[in-house]
Amino acid sequence: MSQNKKGLLVIFSGPSGSGKGTIMKSLLASRDDTVLSVSMTTRAPRPGEIDGYHYHFVTREEFQKTIEEDGFLEYAEYNGNFYGTPEAPIRRLLNEGKNVMLEIEVQGAEKVMDHRSDVVSIFITTPSFEELERRLRGRGTEPEEVIQGRMKTSQYELSRAFRYQYIVLNDEVEKAVDRINTIIDAEYMRYSRMENTILEVLKDVSTQ
Amino acid sequence: MSQNKKGLLVIFSGPSGSGKGTIMKSLLASRDDTVLSVSMTTRAPRPGEIDGYHYHFVTREEFQKTIEEDGFLEYAEYNGNFYGTPEAPIRRLLNEGKNVMLEIEVQGAEKVMDHRSDVVSIFITTPSFEELERRLRGRGTEPEEVIQGRMKTSQYELSRAFRYQYIVLNDEVEKAVDRINTIIDAEYMRYSRMENTILEVLKDVSTQ
Repeated sequence: MSQNKKGLLVIFSGPSGSGKGTIMKSLLASRDDTVLSVSMTTRAPRPGEIDGYHYHFVTREEFQKTIEEDGFLEYAEYNGNFYGTPEAPIRRLLNEGKNVMLEIEVQGAEKVMDHRSDVVSIFITTPSFEELERRLRGRGTEPEEVIQGRMKTSQYELSRAFRYQYIVLNDEVEKAVDRINTIIDAEYMRYSRMENTILEVLKDVSTQ
Repeated sequence: MSQNKKGLLVIFSGPSGSGKGTIMKSLLASRDDTVLSVSMTTRAPRPGEIDGYHYHFVTREEFQKTIEEDGFLEYAEYNGNFYGTPEAPIRRLLNEGKNVMLEIEVQGAEKVMDHRSDVVSIFITTPSFEELERRLRGRGTEPEEVIQGRMKTSQYELSRAFRYQYIVLNDEVEKAVDRINTIIDAEYMRYSRMENTILEVLKDVSTQ
């Protein structure tokens, strides 16, 4: 039997309002073999944000150095700040057998998919756009242009769902979490991840 | 929400002694949305075999006619008899939303994989070759050459496991059945099978 299996790198995206943050929290609480990748950013921490938990807060120079070392799975600039997914801690966690969840927007996700063939990609959606809008508006008292902007982004993100391997419906949080667990369990049975088992059964034959 | 989903065509193979017959029986008893494909053969029924259940028993002329109509997913000749997987009843069952299990040997399975991109393929194995041999010998009082022949075939089949999407370990029957259920559930979440859900969420946007 194969030991010390490598973990899975799981890309996890969904439009604003799909409930992916809540699902992720519940998923991480339910399995201790699974961790969330922490992004690196040059923006300043907001009150209450913890370095190494919400983000790795770094200087522009440190970020630039990681770019030069080809150390990001993907990175991008938004509103003058850099955000990126550093590869080294992910590699370490995967080798320790942890599943690493990459909660990431669609454009970053597509960059990762283009560079790594071994990712599992999951896109979360609500059952309807009305539901998405209801959740977006329910958040608080944001100006209508902000809501409209978020809805445009959500529409764009939904139009890129075809790039993902799996679509998970968020009708209920616990059901959505169960579905993700099902996908993770199935992915561990992929030939590529079970090859050692087959090779060891065949090795038995040659030593008989 | 999408209705009337098509079922999955699931190829199910494993070496002689892997316990696939027992697993299949238990799987079929556990879910009423899943049926076993019935092969067509020109060989004579054995005592106790029921036409339409164990096989569709047909004449050589009927079999030949189905070949000419391109009506088989795969067929082969063994010991002067023809065996084949007729496509029409499978298509009908899939359209009714049933999952169709194709319990089939490796060479037939590969023919089906080469012709259809929409199959889910599962290979069953015991955790070791010793276990496979124990089960093969445990069957009864068959001559050593028959056992040796089966073991050679099992070895060949294991060497083709890489053609399958999933490897399911048969350490315990109930666990193996759970694993197959997990794979079926995950496969229903593939983008191709959830595309209508995404399209309907996006349709909501355009009608707002």
